[in-house]
Amino acid sequence: MNVNGYPQRTIWPTADNSAVEIIDQTKLPHEFVTLLLESMRDAERAIRDMQVRGAPLIGVTAAYGVALSMRHHASDAALKATCDMLLAARPTAVNLRWGVERMRALLAPLPAEQRAAAAWQEAGVIAEEDVAINRAIGVHGCDLIRAIYQRTKSTVNILTHCNAGWLATVDWGTALAPIYAAVAENIPLHVWVDETRPRNQGASLTAWELGQHGVSHTVIVDNAGGHLMQHGKVDMVIVGCDRVTARGDVCNKIGTYLKALAARDNGVPFYVALPTPTIDWMLQDGVQEIPIEERAAAEVTHISGLADDGQIHTVRVTPLNSPVANYGFDVTPARLVTALITERGVVQADEKSLRELLL
Amino acid sequence: MNVNGYPQRTIWPTADNSAVEIIDQTKLPHEFVTLLLESMRDAERAIRDMQVRGAPLIGVTAAYGVALSMRHHASDAALKATCDMLLAARPTAVNLRWGVERMRALLAPLPAEQRAAAAWQEAGVIAEEDVAINRAIGVHGCDLIRAIYQRTKSTVNILTHCNAGWLATVDWGTALAPIYAAVAENIPLHVWVDETRPRNQGASLTAWELGQHGVSHTVIVDNAGGHLMQHGKVDMVIVGCDRVTARGDVCNKIGTYLKALAARDNGVPFYVALPTPTIDWMLQDGVQEIPIEERAAAEVTHISGLADDGQIHTVRVTPLNSPVANYGFDVTPARLVTALITERGVVQADEKSLRELLL
Repeated sequence: MNVNGYPQRTIWPTADNSAVEIIDQTKLPHEFVTLLLESMRDAERAIRDMQVRGAPLIGVTAAYGVALSMRHHASDAALKATCDMLLAARPTAVNLRWGVERMRALLAPLPAEQRAAAAWQEAGVIAEEDVAINRAIGVHGCDLIRAIYQRTKSTVNILTHCNAGWLATVDWGTALAPIYAAVAENIPLHVWVDETRPRNQGASLTAWELGQHGVSHTVIVDNAGGHLMQHGKVDMVIVGCDRVTARGDVCNKIGTYLKALAARDNGVPFYVALPTPTIDWMLQDGVQEIPIEERAAAEVTHISGLADDGQIHTVRVTPLNSPVANYGFDVTPARLVTALITERGVVQADEKSLRELLL
Repeated sequence: MNVNGYPQRTIWPTADNSAVEIIDQTKLPHEFVTLLLESMRDAERAIRDMQVRGAPLIGVTAAYGVALSMRHHASDAALKATCDMLLAARPTAVNLRWGVERMRALLAPLPAEQRAAAAWQEAGVIAEEDVAINRAIGVHGCDLIRAIYQRTKSTVNILTHCNAGWLATVDWGTALAPIYAAVAENIPLHVWVDETRPRNQGASLTAWELGQHGVSHTVIVDNAGGHLMQHGKVDMVIVGCDRVTARGDVCNKIGTYLKALAARDNGVPFYVALPTPTIDWMLQDGVQEIPIEERAAAEVTHISGLADDGQIHTVRVTPLNSPVANYGFDVTPARLVTALITERGVVQADEKSLRELLL
């Protein structure tokens, strides 16, 4: 999608293929800074510190991390150590595991001296596949937006939580791909952007990428969505996800479940956009089975932003001695999900439908 | 309740009765600063700028505002102008209207020269009545906490939203009064404190007052409550409110409705604590009939906190060109409310029960 009027991706190889570049997403929306990843440790750090975030982008970055590592040490032991270290960077992200295991499966049978070249090529393939998948999600999701517009003949109001936009993928995004596709068709729409505490990915990333691409949007606090739905100001909800169970329970950024409850209470359709590799067939009951990452208290106690002096400053919002808990995700039961938007089509959130989709 | 180990109220007359003092709540939790209100305009500004906030405290501050005004101009015209100006400071707060109209009803029949003394005395009476009402709410709500403790024999986990503590009243609070009463009885409890964006009254005020009084608590983002309830970590929700309709719909800080939905979905009792003057008998359907205050965008785009230099700084969290909407309150339908905790007892959220309570 566009930045300053020009097409941009979130991760791309340098011209000489010596490294990859990423957008440092921790600097957005105040600064647009790119970073060079020259080693597996650079990639691991970028994932852990959330300079790259979003399930698909994490997977692609991990694949490039494996590829960068193989250039220096390509033994079986090095391959194992590389995969282990990358997997530990974000324990909840199933796409991280998917990306790493795909690389491992490709590389393990190869002679060590062929691994570096094969890995680099495969990482590029994974990136292009991600773009193709997201474009397909956009096409299918756009059908839902268009149907609402054809019925109401007025601006379609879409609420989204967190950032499942192109910044979370290589390009297009998951939850925002249908929106970009609808904008390309000139369907009038407006996006309610949950700020998404504690890391403010909505306020900082979703608002920024929609603004850069010229999409009408309004930032709201996470508390506001229920009120908007009660007053008919939301036609549909589209969110992304980090993990979907075999029966369609959705693990996504903390607070998603609350929006799903409000959507159900007000008859607003609640859609989850995902590439099918996000489905974790090993799991059924998401609430009981998905381990929820607890993150650093500082994400809640402190907030960073742009001060009057033009610099990024961090301020403390809680009392010094008050304890904090910081759960990264929650699980929305399948019963609250109207449908899943995948690259293979729109499907009900139940095991039978999901399995049929992949036949 | 206690600050630094000593009992403290939110508003009190100076020793010479020349003015009233308040805690500047916009400075909490980082600085404990008191302010002198010497005129009606001081009181009006304190209400409008939320140096005092919380329905009961707003009512008492307005009453003192009328009293301070009468010392300078006590004509009928001055009384009307004073009441009009104070009423405009926070349009959603029914207690503001209640406090002002009570003063007007008392003062209007009196000769102008008697108004100043009568007003000062009445403001003090209103303040003491507030303390008595909140203490009674605490007694009745404590019965509910004690019942849970007697059943579970383990720490009672209570979730609250915004600040309906003693800082929102003259003392004790509404939603937190039962908690302070239970703490006084040594019932083991723990409070989950929603940070309550956009103004962070939970993170800044509720956490501060619980910490100062020695009450076990943990700050969470507003997004987290649903997840905690799904995992059995919340035994009850207690919130305050700004306005309750005749049939029991509850207008409270934006986001309350989302917590009520999660409580219902997980079988967690959802209680609303209120002094009965908060009931607005003129209204039935809260969602349709209660006008919701839209507040300044800066509350969402910017956040203030304590920086490393020990000073309060304000930082911007959203992109410069992203629009913002800022709804101050939402309405929780009575069907989601387990019961209302009032100074007259605990009562079902329906018109018949509410009317019987006041007989």
